[in-house]
Amino acid sequence: MTLNIGVIGTGAIGREHIRRLSHKLLGSRVVAVTDINLEQAARVVQEEGITAEVYPDGHALVGAADVQAVVVTSWGPTHEEYVLAAIAAGKPVFCEKPLAVTAEGCKRIVEAEQAHGKRLVQVGFMRPYDAGYRQLKAVIDGQRIGEPLMIHAAHRNPSVGEGYTTDMAITDTLIHEINVLAWLLDDQYVSAQVVFPRKTSQALAHLKDPQVVLLETAKGVRIDVEIFVNCQYGYDIQCEVVGEHGIARLPEPSSVQLRSDAKLSNEILVDWKQRFLLAYDVELQAFIDDLKAGQLTGPSSWDGYIAAVTGDACVNAQRSGTIVPITLPTRPAFYG
Amino acid sequence: MTLNIGVIGTGAIGREHIRRLSHKLLGSRVVAVTDINLEQAARVVQEEGITAEVYPDGHALVGAADVQAVVVTSWGPTHEEYVLAAIAAGKPVFCEKPLAVTAEGCKRIVEAEQAHGKRLVQVGFMRPYDAGYRQLKAVIDGQRIGEPLMIHAAHRNPSVGEGYTTDMAITDTLIHEINVLAWLLDDQYVSAQVVFPRKTSQALAHLKDPQVVLLETAKGVRIDVEIFVNCQYGYDIQCEVVGEHGIARLPEPSSVQLRSDAKLSNEILVDWKQRFLLAYDVELQAFIDDLKAGQLTGPSSWDGYIAAVTGDACVNAQRSGTIVPITLPTRPAFYG
Amino acid sequence: MTLNIGVIGTGAIGREHIRRLSHKLLGSRVVAVTDINLEQAARVVQEEGITAEVYPDGHALVGAADVQAVVVTSWGPTHEEYVLAAIAAGKPVFCEKPLAVTAEGCKRIVEAEQAHGKRLVQVGFMRPYDAGYRQLKAVIDGQRIGEPLMIHAAHRNPSVGEGYTTDMAITDTLIHEINVLAWLLDDQYVSAQVVFPRKTSQALAHLKDPQVVLLETAKGVRIDVEIFVNCQYGYDIQCEVVGEHGIARLPEPSSVQLRSDAKLSNEILVDWKQRFLLAYDVELQAFIDDLKAGQLTGPSSWDGYIAAVTGDACVNAQRSGTIVPITLPTRPAFYG
Amino acid sequence: MTLNIGVIGTGAIGREHIRRLSHKLLGSRVVAVTDINLEQAARVVQEEGITAEVYPDGHALVGAADVQAVVVTSWGPTHEEYVLAAIAAGKPVFCEKPLAVTAEGCKRIVEAEQAHGKRLVQVGFMRPYDAGYRQLKAVIDGQRIGEPLMIHAAHRNPSVGEGYTTDMAITDTLIHEINVLAWLLDDQYVSAQVVFPRKTSQALAHLKDPQVVLLETAKGVRIDVEIFVNCQYGYDIQCEVVGEHGIARLPEPSSVQLRSDAKLSNEILVDWKQRFLLAYDVELQAFIDDLKAGQLTGPSSWDGYIAAVTGDACVNAQRSGTIVPITLPTRPAFYG
Repeated sequence: MTLNIGVIGTGAIGREHIRRLSHKLLGSRVVAVTDINLEQAARVVQEEGITAEVYPDGHALVGAADVQAVVVTSWGPTHEEYVLAAIAAGKPVFCEKPLAVTAEGCKRIVEAEQAHGKRLVQVGFMRPYDAGYRQLKAVIDGQRIGEPLMIHAAHRNPSVGEGYTTDMAITDTLIHEINVLAWLLDDQYVSAQVVFPRKTSQALAHLKDPQVVLLETAKGVRIDVEIFVNCQYGYDIQCEVVGEHGIARLPEPSSVQLRSDAKLSNEILVDWKQRFLLAYDVELQAFIDDLKAGQLTGPSSWDGYIAAVTGDACVNAQRSGTIVPITLPTRPAFYG
Repeated sequence: MTLNIGVIGTGAIGREHIRRLSHKLLGSRVVAVTDINLEQAARVVQEEGITAEVYPDGHALVGAADVQAVVVTSWGPTHEEYVLAAIAAGKPVFCEKPLAVTAEGCKRIVEAEQAHGKRLVQVGFMRPYDAGYRQLKAVIDGQRIGEPLMIHAAHRNPSVGEGYTTDMAITDTLIHEINVLAWLLDDQYVSAQVVFPRKTSQALAHLKDPQVVLLETAKGVRIDVEIFVNCQYGYDIQCEVVGEHGIARLPEPSSVQLRSDAKLSNEILVDWKQRFLLAYDVELQAFIDDLKAGQLTGPSSWDGYIAAVTGDACVNAQRSGTIVPITLPTRPAFYG
Repeated sequence: MTLNIGVIGTGAIGREHIRRLSHKLLGSRVVAVTDINLEQAARVVQEEGITAEVYPDGHALVGAADVQAVVVTSWGPTHEEYVLAAIAAGKPVFCEKPLAVTAEGCKRIVEAEQAHGKRLVQVGFMRPYDAGYRQLKAVIDGQRIGEPLMIHAAHRNPSVGEGYTTDMAITDTLIHEINVLAWLLDDQYVSAQVVFPRKTSQALAHLKDPQVVLLETAKGVRIDVEIFVNCQYGYDIQCEVVGEHGIARLPEPSSVQLRSDAKLSNEILVDWKQRFLLAYDVELQAFIDDLKAGQLTGPSSWDGYIAAVTGDACVNAQRSGTIVPITLPTRPAFYG
Repeated sequence: MTLNIGVIGTGAIGREHIRRLSHKLLGSRVVAVTDINLEQAARVVQEEGITAEVYPDGHALVGAADVQAVVVTSWGPTHEEYVLAAIAAGKPVFCEKPLAVTAEGCKRIVEAEQAHGKRLVQVGFMRPYDAGYRQLKAVIDGQRIGEPLMIHAAHRNPSVGEGYTTDMAITDTLIHEINVLAWLLDDQYVSAQVVFPRKTSQALAHLKDPQVVLLETAKGVRIDVEIFVNCQYGYDIQCEVVGEHGIARLPEPSSVQLRSDAKLSNEILVDWKQRFLLAYDVELQAFIDDLKAGQLTGPSSWDGYIAAVTGDACVNAQRSGTIVPITLPTRPAFYG
């Protein structure tokens, strides 16, 4: 049984997902694509060697009879519209982050999905599918460090381009920690604060870099996340969970240990694309497998919604310098 | 395009390969099986939920019209016969180790394959498909440590059963190092010596354990491999390559770093099946993909042959206590 | 040339210093001791096998003709009085922390010392004498990570007794980080904030544990220090300095790496006394050597004063939950 | 009580020991020196700021009334003569390696010392005084890895000068492992074999480098020591002891962990002098303290003797390519 998938948006990540769904994963086939640039969509179909129809827009694609599930990888501001269309059509949809560009948009999706009566939406948060984070969660859930009390985390990029703004440290970068740490802890956030250390001389004039975001969860766990997007030395994701009787640390990516040039060293990745490469495969394979099994289990529209609300609070905290409370409704039973 | 595969031998590893080829890998389908125990073969077909015909024996399976490639996972002494049959039928064959139980048997296969005129055989040495060994080879081939001069390696199991004999330290255990180290170095062996350290009190009476095997290669590289199959603490594979200006070490399997109980620790695997789990997938996927691309590139029957000759020399070295020369013909151009 | 030293306070740490000064370090001799419990002082003299006079109180000891330098290891509230007495007598004094129990007391000492016209006081902050911190400072000062922007630190004890109160997390525990981080950065503090994570079930009812202290320095460096005094697993001091193009981490204490029981592990110390054992020797030897060279260079009364002011701000921050500014006068040229 | 010491030989290491004994260690004073170059001896006395008499030769120095103990750091071929003179005078003597340049010479010393009736000689093997090796021995003696079965060791230098010959890999380099491994295991050697890997292109024409020495002990432990004196990357001492249920590894020297330039790295020492710097202090302090306590406990003339016999066997093994038996008398009760 092969799942017929339509992909909305054939830019960089859309194209990678098309390749995965066509040539790498089991049980899926891309039968429909569309893009704001239809020529580009047609070229991708040709270059990837697939037989998929090019639809004039996302709505036509969602409505196509042979499309059984939709993948949304278009420009962020269009996500909400296409996800809502898929829900309206009763078709499952995998939507890259953000689920919607506003918390209200996310809420509309959550409400539509609940009205439909069954989970249809998975948001493209891939870290819960990373083997390292899974090992870390197994250690926590296995009570090997006791109840978690604190998390010390860091998200570092070698450098960013001119278009990267101070609030993108939240909406583009921290958003992954917001998702994965709540999942790790099975918890949600109640307040956010941001402090700005001395700015690195390596950052452009308009950007505050690094930043430290302090989050508090409902269970009282305190989290500090360093975001440092011009750290120069590598793409480096750190996560240390401090529990009542032990501490667990996210594994470093596996690499050859070298003794050379008066150094005992392991390579640190520089390209972020390498870091969670496998997690993307696992994430989409899970989407396909879960659909076949009849029940989505990955990051839900609710997770997308609370990420949006938390992200908004963090951006407010950046601007106000104060501790910003985060008020979230109780997770509906619908979302497990 | 899906490759139709017939599997000879539905025991433990046969069954795992059937599962891989049916439910995990891309582009293959098991259409035929057989086993010395036909009822068991039929049960596997049923339990794995596949539609494969059960043939009365390996020859019938090899001859079946819809079988495009053969996987041999039967009892070792039968391998040669079925591989030769597949070659005779002009069908590609993936054969679990050993390719044959004698070097002469391997040689017959090598000759038959060359007479056929094109590579048809891949031997089930999976370590060259392990991500860690591949990283290690990339470091060597990238000249990051200079010309290799020595390898220090270890192959440790927590314990072995009563059936494990002193020579199986070579034929069952070292055989993987024999294969992967020659591949790492792009070299072959010219002599072997075995020394027996003080015996561990944890080994049964009939077994000499641990052992240290000393190998010399054509390029003069000196290798020491510790084989210790009752080491108690874990399944642990170590490999350190000493080059002219640096040293590279096989990565440890990735794991969470824990601080607990007055220890900073990482888990060591205990079950050998976990260690190269992914490598088995990659190995068989490569067999399928290579067949589709028209050219096998994995461990060849030649590699199986030199492993057999080298293994024989090591067993002689165990018995004689002397340095045993290994005489191997030059690798034919046919085998790259 | 041997320096004649008088020790005020022969309790645990006093006795250890007597042993050091008598039997372990070069160029010193303990010629005078006193204690609130004179019998105990006499017993220490006898048991340590030294020929030292027992004086009725600290003032008598300071005034003794043959006492060339004073070591104050008595009860904290008496420190100020004896240090001032030593300054009045123009005698160098090594005072265990705290220099005085109030910032005002420290200030009086600073003023008296400046009035005297030459440095006479060294405060017993030993971390700047630890080999690990010195390596870390060398890396920073050598510009190997660029300008420091952040520090992530932790100070963990396996457990504490009933007498340990929430504010002692600052005055007894954090006080070492307050000193050593300012020294590492060559900087001082401008604000403090304290957040309280979920309390560990391992702490007694009256104690908030763990705590996270956030400090900001004059140069804008942001520091987070986790204080966790019932962490169960060990005595663990962590310090990571994030610079503009690299990150440096305090070395773990050296230990044998073990492979056993399915773990790759290194021991973590449990007893805090082991952690900086050598640093105490180096610290006191430096005091002796510096006196002989004519110029104290270790932690000064000014360092004791800013530690007291910073500590007060942190205690206020604990109580108020707010960000407490730290106002410190400029370091006088007198203190380098 | 200060021990009056006479030093024979004021070259590099002699001078360092003079400095230690005069300015760094407790309870010793250098009162007499001599050297083949008397002007140089006089200059050292002056430059080190000590008041020591310059004697015309070692025999005069040994005979000087105020010399209580002798340190021999002269040219190797003169060691035996001066050690025998000290024994004849009944004076304790610390002799840098080699104790004598032949095994016979060592034997004469052993016999003279036993005839004297009390241990007078300590040989300058410093590794048993290194904190890392002591930790390793504590792990072994504490039965934390079970009975030792194998040791994998390496002794690597970045490079050596023109004067370094193939047999010096044994007499100058391996000699330290010969001593420290026997001490670690409380065992002695019964055979030696040497294999020569492919030669590094970094070595001079006359030198075989690297080498692997295989030693067997009386208890059956098998040892492989890689000696690689042009390894380029650093001065690196490795030692891994494989026991019946665990493996213990010599700690790496403590250093700051850096994240920079796409690498997670720790520094490796390049200068061998740094590696055991502290061990030299501890070794000589132990000599002084042991003398005061009335009983030498460090490496004995017997240890020097078995090192010489073992070293001779290794050199024979280098030349013959065979497995050379090592025949040693039983350790006399005199030597514990």
